[in-house]
Amino acid sequence: MAFNRPEREELIARAKGMVREAYFKRDRLLIQTAGALSDADKASNLLTERLREWYGMHFPELNVSEPAKYCELVMLIDKKNPDVDDVKKIIGEQKAREFASKSGASIGADLPPADIDEIKRFASTILQLYKLREKLEAYQAALAREVCPNLAHLVEPALAARLIAKAGGLERLAIFPASTIQVLGAEKALFKHLRNHTRPPKHGVIFQHPYVCNSPKKLRGKIARALAAKIAIAVKADAYSKRFIAKELKDKFEERVKNIRESASAQTAPAQKQ
Amino acid sequence: MAFNRPEREELIARAKGMVREAYFKRDRLLIQTAGALSDADKASNLLTERLREWYGMHFPELNVSEPAKYCELVMLIDKKNPDVDDVKKIIGEQKAREFASKSGASIGADLPPADIDEIKRFASTILQLYKLREKLEAYQAALAREVCPNLAHLVEPALAARLIAKAGGLERLAIFPASTIQVLGAEKALFKHLRNHTRPPKHGVIFQHPYVCNSPKKLRGKIARALAAKIAIAVKADAYSKRFIAKELKDKFEERVKNIRESASAQTAPAQKQ
Repeated sequence: MAFNRPEREELIARAKGMVREAYFKRDRLLIQTAGALSDADKASNLLTERLREWYGMHFPELNVSEPAKYCELVMLIDKKNPDVDDVKKIIGEQKAREFASKSGASIGADLPPADIDEIKRFASTILQLYKLREKLEAYQAALAREVCPNLAHLVEPALAARLIAKAGGLERLAIFPASTIQVLGAEKALFKHLRNHTRPPKHGVIFQHPYVCNSPKKLRGKIARALAAKIAIAVKADAYSKRFIAKELKDKFEERVKNIRESASAQTAPAQKQ
Repeated sequence: MAFNRPEREELIARAKGMVREAYFKRDRLLIQTAGALSDADKASNLLTERLREWYGMHFPELNVSEPAKYCELVMLIDKKNPDVDDVKKIIGEQKAREFASKSGASIGADLPPADIDEIKRFASTILQLYKLREKLEAYQAALAREVCPNLAHLVEPALAARLIAKAGGLERLAIFPASTIQVLGAEKALFKHLRNHTRPPKHGVIFQHPYVCNSPKKLRGKIARALAAKIAIAVKADAYSKRFIAKELKDKFEERVKNIRESASAQTAPAQKQ
């Protein structure tokens, strides 16, 4: 069957419109933002590791675990004439004094200023990445509150974004059962379980939720299941009814966690008495 | 055997001096620079891929293969009112006109300015990485010319830096035989050859040298061997005699390549006549 020219053009125009509409969905933007954030993290981690090794030739005694602060210090410090007041602002007084006492007896090489400048430029670019990360995080949070207000209220916006990214979209996440949501992101462990009959995963990306990761290991599975059930409800509200029900959901979830913890401690208490 | 206090302190001070000296070696700095450069490449590739996907939601028709130019365009372009004069400066007149014709009929989503701004910020940070890369490359070249003038003259400074980084230092590279230098960086293929009797690798990182990678596949092994032999000589001069002999070495190497190519074409010519 052949279309004549005007018909064909109309069909193409309609197809283009549909593509444009698909592109336009805000949850797709959220997925990209979440990806950009995780890529920015990967990049800054990689470069900070390199900076530590490189600057470590000059001043191996500088140990500051926060990567952004390390970059700032690299840019600021003159090892031979350290300005403790400046350093204080970044890492606090106690650490600054510790640092000043170390800088005199450093076993690192006294690199010429030209070489140090190259390292400083490297550090300053990494710092740009950390600043980008901050902005991206704020943007992602705002976007998540817009796309999925219920989900973003129930869990953190960052986790909400990751869940939607893992599922491939808000509407896809909305049709997942709670059991799938619970192990979303733990696909490797799940398929290992199905193939080799290892133990099933208790949680995927929702492990990041403070109630899950900060609970005793024994309770995490139960709490993850409860959380996944609430997420499934919240996401359906976001995708279909658009009503804000997350407040009650969150209260109920917190109550459930309390119950789980209490019943666990009631069980272990007699066991300890024996 | 116990040392008394002053003796012990003296020994510690001497050990510290030795560590400092080891740190001070300029080839270690070159190794770090080469590492920083390759890490910066990895990071900017990762982020550019993300940018293409993210901005692609808005303007999928923009295809510019040079990553730095793509970032510049993302920062510059307003899809609805493209300023062709600005675009011209970046990608040339012909491409700019092509782009202007596409931008009107784009099937991408018309994202609100607030979202576009986030993408632009992302692009601008990536551009910082590309600028860093340029500076690092110039610094690496200067450092390579200082650390290993012969090697940097014989091959490109970038390749010289990678060879030294692979070997773990100038002096270590100087004790390697030419055959090791030839396959430096192809360790995986080499050990596969030794274990499973697959074909041995013809070249490691020296594949990057234009005479190797631009030659017909059949001649690459021979040319790589000739190059590795000259590298072994150049590096020994850099590490020990410190004389500049790279000019003659390079001439000899080029002559050898000419010979290899001529004898190859002499062999294939009669075969073609049959």
